[in-house]
Amino acid sequence: MSEQLVLHEYAASGNCYKVRLTAALIGVPVERREYDIMKGETRTPEFLAKVNANGRIPVLEVGDRFIPESNAACHYLADGSKLIPTDRFEHADMLRWMFWEQYNHEPNIATLRFWIRLVGLEQLNEAQRLQMASKRQAGNAALALMDSHLKERDWFVGDAISLADICLFAYTHVADEADFDLELYPNVIRWMEQIMTMDGYIPMEA
Amino acid sequence: MSEQLVLHEYAASGNCYKVRLTAALIGVPVERREYDIMKGETRTPEFLAKVNANGRIPVLEVGDRFIPESNAACHYLADGSKLIPTDRFEHADMLRWMFWEQYNHEPNIATLRFWIRLVGLEQLNEAQRLQMASKRQAGNAALALMDSHLKERDWFVGDAISLADICLFAYTHVADEADFDLELYPNVIRWMEQIMTMDGYIPMEA
Repeated sequence: MSEQLVLHEYAASGNCYKVRLTAALIGVPVERREYDIMKGETRTPEFLAKVNANGRIPVLEVGDRFIPESNAACHYLADGSKLIPTDRFEHADMLRWMFWEQYNHEPNIATLRFWIRLVGLEQLNEAQRLQMASKRQAGNAALALMDSHLKERDWFVGDAISLADICLFAYTHVADEADFDLELYPNVIRWMEQIMTMDGYIPMEA
Repeated sequence: MSEQLVLHEYAASGNCYKVRLTAALIGVPVERREYDIMKGETRTPEFLAKVNANGRIPVLEVGDRFIPESNAACHYLADGSKLIPTDRFEHADMLRWMFWEQYNHEPNIATLRFWIRLVGLEQLNEAQRLQMASKRQAGNAALALMDSHLKERDWFVGDAISLADICLFAYTHVADEADFDLELYPNVIRWMEQIMTMDGYIPMEA
């Protein structure tokens, strides 16, 4: 890849970790630029005008262009690598799990982790407090669906690791920080261990 | 496409309409099978075991395999067509808007439409009622971001229609049913009119 890559990120975010893990597994160097989202550093006029009008990280800078949305940034990085199946059905099936992650997994597990570990329960408003039970239930349903899918499979799509696994791994492997009991999902644990022992793997805090 | 395509759907869902509109614009016939989600027809043991363990529509059936998640089904249908850019950056940029749609647009605009028009306000629980204001605000922020992006552009990605436009169009063009005032977003209206006058366009109720 000839163009310089810069990841605009907040290191504790699983969405940002997805992009770093993808880059590490395919051996592509990415420069990192840290923002403190708790201090509103991704909502400054400069960030909104230049990096992402949506005020969120991660954003992958490619030359002088920007790709917001973690899963899209992973797709850019991994394009042409073994992490994206070339078969038409498997490519769509990989995206299926990535869309499912953003709709059914992240808003429950990542949001509870954010509220509990980063914001603090006493800081939540009433609407957020009242959502905790349904997010807990939906998060467990997401983990159970993953566990069931992995019962007789090693990977989410086909018979090799793909972006679907990386994008689902990011918040799953820290779900205990949102007080989910991962021991209830033994197939998920086996799948996580497979990823964590791969060549090129980097932990979230690396 | 040689394999038979069946769309498992609920016709009033914008997510299902995306798949029908994609198929229509590329001229691919898709058989339709209707489920009444208000009667729980996508939560039956048979549906969960065979069609989608996540209990949701749309699901695109391809031969004897299934693709849940609307945006993934659109990607399968449009693969190899002009609706998916071949350029690496533009492909990722298209996916960026599709992920953004599922995370920032659909959970606000589509959910409010569902609550107001299909469930009925008096049926909402307290947690849902308390989310209405933040969903209203986030929905307007999503429409404003679209309007700003379209200020000097005809399409979301590059200079031609792509799946990004189709997937964003589905719930945007019925945002008035969620009591959003689309007249506040003139560039969005111009962009919607472009889509509605295209060859092959079909309305949601078709």
